[in-house]
Amino acid sequence: MIKVGIIGATGYAGGEIVRLLMGHKDARIVWYGSRSYIDKKYSDVFSNMFQIVEDRCLDDNMEELADQADVIFTATPQGFCASLLKEDILRKTKVIDLSADFRIKDVSVYEQWYKLEHKSPQFLDEAVYGLCEINREQIRRARLVANPGCYPTCSTLSVYPLIKEGLIDPSTLIIDAKSGTSGAGRGAKVDNLFCEVNENIKAYGVAGHRHTPEIEEQLSYAAGEPVRISFTPHLVPMNRGILITAYASLKKEVSYEEVKAVYDNYYEKEYFVRVLEKDVCPQTKWVEGSNFVDVNFKIDPRTKRIIMMGAMDNLVKGAAGQAVQNMNLLFDLPETEGLMLAPMFP
Amino acid sequence: MIKVGIIGATGYAGGEIVRLLMGHKDARIVWYGSRSYIDKKYSDVFSNMFQIVEDRCLDDNMEELADQADVIFTATPQGFCASLLKEDILRKTKVIDLSADFRIKDVSVYEQWYKLEHKSPQFLDEAVYGLCEINREQIRRARLVANPGCYPTCSTLSVYPLIKEGLIDPSTLIIDAKSGTSGAGRGAKVDNLFCEVNENIKAYGVAGHRHTPEIEEQLSYAAGEPVRISFTPHLVPMNRGILITAYASLKKEVSYEEVKAVYDNYYEKEYFVRVLEKDVCPQTKWVEGSNFVDVNFKIDPRTKRIIMMGAMDNLVKGAAGQAVQNMNLLFDLPETEGLMLAPMFP
Amino acid sequence: MIKVGIIGATGYAGGEIVRLLMGHKDARIVWYGSRSYIDKKYSDVFSNMFQIVEDRCLDDNMEELADQADVIFTATPQGFCASLLKEDILRKTKVIDLSADFRIKDVSVYEQWYKLEHKSPQFLDEAVYGLCEINREQIRRARLVANPGCYPTCSTLSVYPLIKEGLIDPSTLIIDAKSGTSGAGRGAKVDNLFCEVNENIKAYGVAGHRHTPEIEEQLSYAAGEPVRISFTPHLVPMNRGILITAYASLKKEVSYEEVKAVYDNYYEKEYFVRVLEKDVCPQTKWVEGSNFVDVNFKIDPRTKRIIMMGAMDNLVKGAAGQAVQNMNLLFDLPETEGLMLAPMFP
Amino acid sequence: MIKVGIIGATGYAGGEIVRLLMGHKDARIVWYGSRSYIDKKYSDVFSNMFQIVEDRCLDDNMEELADQADVIFTATPQGFCASLLKEDILRKTKVIDLSADFRIKDVSVYEQWYKLEHKSPQFLDEAVYGLCEINREQIRRARLVANPGCYPTCSTLSVYPLIKEGLIDPSTLIIDAKSGTSGAGRGAKVDNLFCEVNENIKAYGVAGHRHTPEIEEQLSYAAGEPVRISFTPHLVPMNRGILITAYASLKKEVSYEEVKAVYDNYYEKEYFVRVLEKDVCPQTKWVEGSNFVDVNFKIDPRTKRIIMMGAMDNLVKGAAGQAVQNMNLLFDLPETEGLMLAPMFP
Repeated sequence: MIKVGIIGATGYAGGEIVRLLMGHKDARIVWYGSRSYIDKKYSDVFSNMFQIVEDRCLDDNMEELADQADVIFTATPQGFCASLLKEDILRKTKVIDLSADFRIKDVSVYEQWYKLEHKSPQFLDEAVYGLCEINREQIRRARLVANPGCYPTCSTLSVYPLIKEGLIDPSTLIIDAKSGTSGAGRGAKVDNLFCEVNENIKAYGVAGHRHTPEIEEQLSYAAGEPVRISFTPHLVPMNRGILITAYASLKKEVSYEEVKAVYDNYYEKEYFVRVLEKDVCPQTKWVEGSNFVDVNFKIDPRTKRIIMMGAMDNLVKGAAGQAVQNMNLLFDLPETEGLMLAPMFP
Repeated sequence: MIKVGIIGATGYAGGEIVRLLMGHKDARIVWYGSRSYIDKKYSDVFSNMFQIVEDRCLDDNMEELADQADVIFTATPQGFCASLLKEDILRKTKVIDLSADFRIKDVSVYEQWYKLEHKSPQFLDEAVYGLCEINREQIRRARLVANPGCYPTCSTLSVYPLIKEGLIDPSTLIIDAKSGTSGAGRGAKVDNLFCEVNENIKAYGVAGHRHTPEIEEQLSYAAGEPVRISFTPHLVPMNRGILITAYASLKKEVSYEEVKAVYDNYYEKEYFVRVLEKDVCPQTKWVEGSNFVDVNFKIDPRTKRIIMMGAMDNLVKGAAGQAVQNMNLLFDLPETEGLMLAPMFP
Repeated sequence: MIKVGIIGATGYAGGEIVRLLMGHKDARIVWYGSRSYIDKKYSDVFSNMFQIVEDRCLDDNMEELADQADVIFTATPQGFCASLLKEDILRKTKVIDLSADFRIKDVSVYEQWYKLEHKSPQFLDEAVYGLCEINREQIRRARLVANPGCYPTCSTLSVYPLIKEGLIDPSTLIIDAKSGTSGAGRGAKVDNLFCEVNENIKAYGVAGHRHTPEIEEQLSYAAGEPVRISFTPHLVPMNRGILITAYASLKKEVSYEEVKAVYDNYYEKEYFVRVLEKDVCPQTKWVEGSNFVDVNFKIDPRTKRIIMMGAMDNLVKGAAGQAVQNMNLLFDLPETEGLMLAPMFP
Repeated sequence: MIKVGIIGATGYAGGEIVRLLMGHKDARIVWYGSRSYIDKKYSDVFSNMFQIVEDRCLDDNMEELADQADVIFTATPQGFCASLLKEDILRKTKVIDLSADFRIKDVSVYEQWYKLEHKSPQFLDEAVYGLCEINREQIRRARLVANPGCYPTCSTLSVYPLIKEGLIDPSTLIIDAKSGTSGAGRGAKVDNLFCEVNENIKAYGVAGHRHTPEIEEQLSYAAGEPVRISFTPHLVPMNRGILITAYASLKKEVSYEEVKAVYDNYYEKEYFVRVLEKDVCPQTKWVEGSNFVDVNFKIDPRTKRIIMMGAMDNLVKGAAGQAVQNMNLLFDLPETEGLMLAPMFP
């Protein structure tokens, strides 16, 4: 039985880790860390867990936690994990960081986009980017996993095969993303009040969202050359779900069957990536509550572009689900353990 | 491995049975019945099941199905199950009917409220009302289970202990209920279009909703005398969830502790009924996707009334979840098998 | 041209006054008061007003404002208006207070329910309760109008005729209310975040909501005797709208036609109260954005009760619209000026 | 007083024309045409109009209507207006067609995208594309106005100045659009049920939506050369609102101020187009219920692209409001008459 510690257990992503681990056969949560709610019953913060979780919230003492847990999830604001991580901790336990601290290899890029000084750049090299479908083998051997961002997970998985196979021109890539509001976190801000979000849609972070360099880095590896993209997220009046719609110019004329074969080649054996049937557009509701990413594409011969689409639950495959998938890899468990949840519809 | 047939598998309740059984260790679906979608791939109707369910929809031939299945769920319109049920079917298989056909013992009451002739009243006597927490032992021995309606499940469980113990005057009982829109089914009607339901709330079926006599019958058993109630359902702009707010006059002065003790006495050992802590009001979001019913109460000394509240997911405890719970009882499985899902929040 | 000052112009009710007055022929806003946003452009706070309102927010100096405005709207937290009001102000200008400070005549009741010391009880006597349809003539002559609460407006108008005519037993009256989330205000609280409210419904303030004594006082006047009610509000995932469902025992057998005649007698000439046709249930969407209250009723011969229903927009007839209606009365303008907006559907 | 006939008065766009004309000083509706609801009271179909509109629905006899009305709005499915229009009708009355029948000059393009035979191509030449801000003078002199589609209105107004001034390369233009569900109409379809749309987002009509050639035609006029774009609409869980996010490569390096000056030059005097302040992203809620289009842009020096954004209410500026604006132009009324409604927030 793996002993799990969670720092940031009372945010939406932290809460989702708890929900998923309740159904995990080989993991047991020993530490519900939450700086804001120390000593409060966890189920008073998330009442869905009433009579399921009896524990009280603890602080975020990572060193002490390292003694008690086999793995620590940090579902914390940017900068937190980097500020506390030490070699001593990584000797004792494994760390899956859900923040951006170890996702970007180039510390100057991190510091420029996040406006933060990176407090432990010495671990950047060894940190493995935890996009399981792509870095599975490195993850298995890692001590420190940088759990990918929600937008980067959906974006990368949706366009990766076509970039990797050189079918599209990376310099033309535009990703227009739409996210449910849980992605904005549980902080009390006017902008995230029900009446401000409901019956509304807007773009935000235009030409400056922090997930841009993360996506670019991953796609650059795939392309074998530096990739620059336009990335625009939008806030949608729904709790969960991310949809991305990506546009790129095709490098040559291709048929539906050829492109489908490329996707299938990459994802046929991937349980969590579903390449939909011809002309079926991904919908976020079809993956809600699950760890699936649904992807598909449409060739537009008029413009010689291809439109790639991906849908997933931002709190599951985009955060907690992928974190658990990473944990399964770290501990040599079946990758789907605790994650075989069918999506909930409606 | 129990072989399960579902008639009406492409409605919302039918789809939820499928979702739940995907996580059930001892049950396997052998028949996805759907008159409207015969021969169509099930996952083309409910795309959340893509690559999870590969079967095609079959017809609603209950006799043939009886040969193949150990249990049949009928998630069908009123009158359907009653029109097809035969002794021969019940000799071969068990039936859990999610419609109202066998919920009301008095056939004239059924026919008056449902404006239907009952086609097989001969089974009314043996049918067991499948409210597990109350009729557990009879359900275990049943061939035919009448799975309770959504409103009656939430209403009955919320007020049952106080009626049974004689703390409230049943003649003063008023139940004001609020339901998500999945309760209205998947039929294409203007009234259920997104734009008609969204940003809107209304009462419907005022002083005439068909669940009224069902609730009254169950409460009458508890009271030991005929009970008549006011019951008003409302349509709420959300997918899932039922909340009931019930009002009744107290027969005598009681303290919080006394009433709490009554509830605890009835529900302490019931996994799926959670009596919340003092002053915590049930919220539908806290039970979403799960088989829980959250109940609580508030004494109002000013009016000498008690306000009882209950929240549950109408598609789970109010339909598919309770049906699976009934199946577990029928086949001597752990009652919670396939139903240990933590509620999803947010 | 009436010069209007608004204190609390950047809350939802304040913003709605602004919206309505933009279409008012005889009023001009001279003061957008907002303690939190002093010197900020009003249209930076409410961007719907971009290029419509060019003013900047001012402070909440009521004395200075009294010199500049013919009427002051205070859309402020409880206690604010009472703490600043002075005879000198009322000599210079009229005041329409949207808070509860002057709604309840008995200062001890106010202080008990609001947990506040009332700072200017000397004005309670002269304050007129601004429910236009009932107190029209007193309002015309008032200096200080206590604009009714949202729930009390909808509740009182829905049940008033039947109480007044003695058709129902006031001691049996139960009001179950449902409100959109704008009623909770624009403060940044976790409870009002999109993800907490969306896909959720709950009761709150059970047996203790502050609007209870306000409703009771108004109904007591109608009944000619003290009335005590059960009142339970619920939070609904929509921006606007209040629906009330009220239950009471009939004092004698009555026909639909008799009750309809009573309602018509009270409301036939009231532009803003629409008595719907037989068996049509009010829906909040049908009044959205307008000053209408839609009411109707259903007799339940089984329980000898009558169910009364009312729907309105909480920000219009429940706050800003009624405030403007009161202003029109105070200044002898046509009562509907600025308020002839047809409801927006969908 | 202009006598107005509406054919298709019981769809969402038709209903919105009615709502707007209730506040129009110089227009009176004389014909509420609705094939599906002939003889039914209009306010039974749209109950928001109870006691406001007393008329009953009439048929869609355009010839008879031409004798009675000064202007006919056809808010009808594609093909309807073209199938009934005759020279005789246009001699007697003006026609504002809200369908696509007369928007596209090239009949073969229309027939290819709409899969319909055009029944009256003889009027295509004289029909004026009713995008008021661009074709104002031709509209004034027209007999037949082709009211623009919702997506084309928002798209064209958002990118027009930059295309016209040659700042962007039209061949790189990609428009990613998001629409509320009222755009899907009031037909009873499973896809538009509340539970299917709520908590969900999807793309549809990818690389094949019928508004594509309409946008392309208008932008080709601006560019002075044929323009081909990628256009992808998405369905968003909200009633009203369209947001477009458009991407194009800049032809040369430009500053914020230069681009802002271009937009201002085109729209400074346009009441209904609001160019927002620097870094403010348009939000659909800020224009809800109004005839405004809010536009803005962001230069991305990293990719040498510009991101253009536009938000409007699809039922107002995207349909009924623009139709009324066109009517005002046709009859030499102030262009804003009946349309000075401030957006409703929240």
